[in-house]
Order: sequence, then C-alpha cells, then structure tokens
Amino acid sequence: MASKIITIARQYGSGGREIGHILAEQCGFEFYDNNLITLSAQKIGLDAGRLTEADEKIPNSILYTLAIGSSMYSGMHNHNFQPVNDKLFVAQSDIIEEIAKGEKGAVIVGRCADYVLEGREDVTRIFLYADFDRRVAEIARRHNIKLSDAKPLVVKTDKRRANYYNYYTGKKWGKLENYDMALCTDNHTHEEICSIIKVLAGI
Amino acid sequence: MASKIITIARQYGSGGREIGHILAEQCGFEFYDNNLITLSAQKIGLDAGRLTEADEKIPNSILYTLAIGSSMYSGMHNHNFQPVNDKLFVAQSDIIEEIAKGEKGAVIVGRCADYVLEGREDVTRIFLYADFDRRVAEIARRHNIKLSDAKPLVVKTDKRRANYYNYYTGKKWGKLENYDMALCTDNHTHEEICSIIKVLAGI
Repeated sequence: MASKIITIARQYGSGGREIGHILAEQCGFEFYDNNLITLSAQKIGLDAGRLTEADEKIPNSILYTLAIGSSMYSGMHNHNFQPVNDKLFVAQSDIIEEIAKGEKGAVIVGRCADYVLEGREDVTRIFLYADFDRRVAEIARRHNIKLSDAKPLVVKTDKRRANYYNYYTGKKWGKLENYDMALCTDNHTHEEICSIIKVLAGI
Repeated sequence: MASKIITIARQYGSGGREIGHILAEQCGFEFYDNNLITLSAQKIGLDAGRLTEADEKIPNSILYTLAIGSSMYSGMHNHNFQPVNDKLFVAQSDIIEEIAKGEKGAVIVGRCADYVLEGREDVTRIFLYADFDRRVAEIARRHNIKLSDAKPLVVKTDKRRANYYNYYTGKKWGKLENYDMALCTDNHTHEEICSIIKVLAGI
C-alpha cells in the first residue's frame, strides 16, 4: 500500500527540511514544516510571532511540569491552564490529524508527526541523520558563521528537538522503533535520498 | 559510487539472513554468513564444530576480560593466550578484509563487518530491525516452538549479538552512527527491502 503521508524527523543540519521539500514536490504532496505555526495561530487565535518562539520547545516552567505530571497529547485538550507551548503542540497535532484525514498527500517535517499519526497504515515515518562534523560545517555554511559557533548551535538544537519529542510523546527521539527507516544523508544527494524514501513509501 | 560490499547487521527474527541471501543473488555477489566459520576453521586449523559454539559470542571468562582490558581487534593478532572466541573474531575479520580487497562483490551478515570495514567508501552498512512481537512470532514459526519459548530466545539472541558487537568494536550495536541506513522489515517483502538497499548502494 502506497503511503499518503511521509513524516520526517531530522537531526539539525542533516538536510531534512530541504529533502522534505523536494520530496513533496516530486510526489505532488503538500509540504508542512514551520508553516504549521501560521495554521496553528489561526486555529487558536494567537499571534504567529509568539508561537514561533514556542515552536518545537517544551514549556520553561519546572513547576508547571511537576503540577501536571506526564504531559501527553491526549490529556491536554481540556486543560484550563496551558503554557503556549502546550497550546501550540495540541493545535499542531490537531492540524496534522486533519491533514492525514484529507485527500491530498503530505510531507510533514518534525512536530512529533510520527507519534501523532501512530498506527495509521498510510504513513511512512523517516528519521534523517548525518555525521556530526558534516552537520556543523553545513550549519556554518548555511548561516555564514564560524565552525566554533556552529558546533554549540547543532548540539543545542538537537537537544531541544529531543527534549520536545521525549516530553510530548513519552518516547525517545531517534530511537528506531519510532520509525520505518533511519537514513544517513552523508554520502547521497537530496534527490537520491528522496528516491530511497519513495521506494520505501511505495510511491 | 556503487558499493561492492553490503554489510547487514540484524535483530534476531527480522529476516536479515534471508534478505542478505536474496540480495546477494540479485546482485551477483558472494554471500557470507555462518559459512565464515568454515573459512575461519581452515585458516586457523581448528575444528569448525568447536568454532560454531563460539560464533558471535564473547569469551566466558571474566578474568580473561579483566586481564587483557579492552579487547580491540587491532590488539589481538599477536596475543599468545587467546580464547577461541577471539581467535575466531580475528580470523573472521581477516577473511572479511580479504573479501573486501577481492574483485567480487559480497553481502556479509553479522560478524561486526561494518566495523571491520569502517572507512571504506565501497561499503554500504545496513541495520535491519522489526517489531518485537512479530520477531517472536517469526522465530516460533521458524523453529516450530511456542511463542512463550520463542520470546526469551529472541531477547537472549539480541543480547548476545549486542554484547558481541560492543565487546569487539567498542561501539554500540544498533546505534545509528555505525550504519548508512536502518530499515524496519515489518511491512515489506524481502524483495522490497532488497530494492531499497540497492538504491542506497547505487547498484
């Protein structure tokens, strides 16, 4: 059965966003990444700028975390006191579910989409990774910064993504059981990576 | 660049051996799995039956382990006192290196081949995994045993493979950085898995 949805989790600097974009174009699918923030802002009536600050981040307050205990998606919908991070996660998750119910195919980057759509047979779940030094070099090139500045940025961004995923899903970011395939982008062009994903997804 | 060697590490019951066999046939490559034991027996002049007992296992003696410290491949060649496990590992590793230097392509299953051939550009390194319950069902079917007997067998075999890999390589079995791709075999035929590996390997 061909997949209608492809979710891409990705290490920072592995090329996940670009690969997802090319893949969506090749498949005639919609592409969702940080444009989910704009959609979420419309949904919950908050400023998109404020939501951007909370994107793929966990709430800051330790007291809040202690107060509500395990912050699973299913328990969040009717919570009266919610940090903006939780509101954004719930809104994005609802939108991701709506996308999956729709007729059009989609590539969704990040936002725990593999977890939100868990159990659906028409979803192919990918994790993209790459050599640490190569990712540092890529981020330095992309943002025109020194390698010594790019290195902590890569470490910090990966940590933030892992924390976000682990906090909201109760699972572990990058652990194989959460994905259908994990693919190293080091020695392949974006187009080659897309070809491999399409074979796996039956597209 | 097309790969000449494909190494397959595999969770027990994920179909790695069968997939490797089909892949080798499709590519016109040699297939190496436990036939490496016979080749090793010839090389070191030991009985193949005795070597089979030591295959993909670490030495039993804790004292031995403490005495020699870190048992890395490179430090083993001139060791006078060697358990049969170490002798087998060294012999298999030497044979794997000879295979890689040869003209014919090869698929090599297990035996830390990804580590032994680390740094070679003509090698594609695969890790195959699958859902635990599916693997238990597959092993029960394969050996005509009860699910309740297959379950501890799967746990024990995976643990043995991980110990073997971690002990001889100093790395962690199943950790993404050791492989070019990790692929879940759950929802695909062996032939589909082979197609995906061939695209990755440029074959």
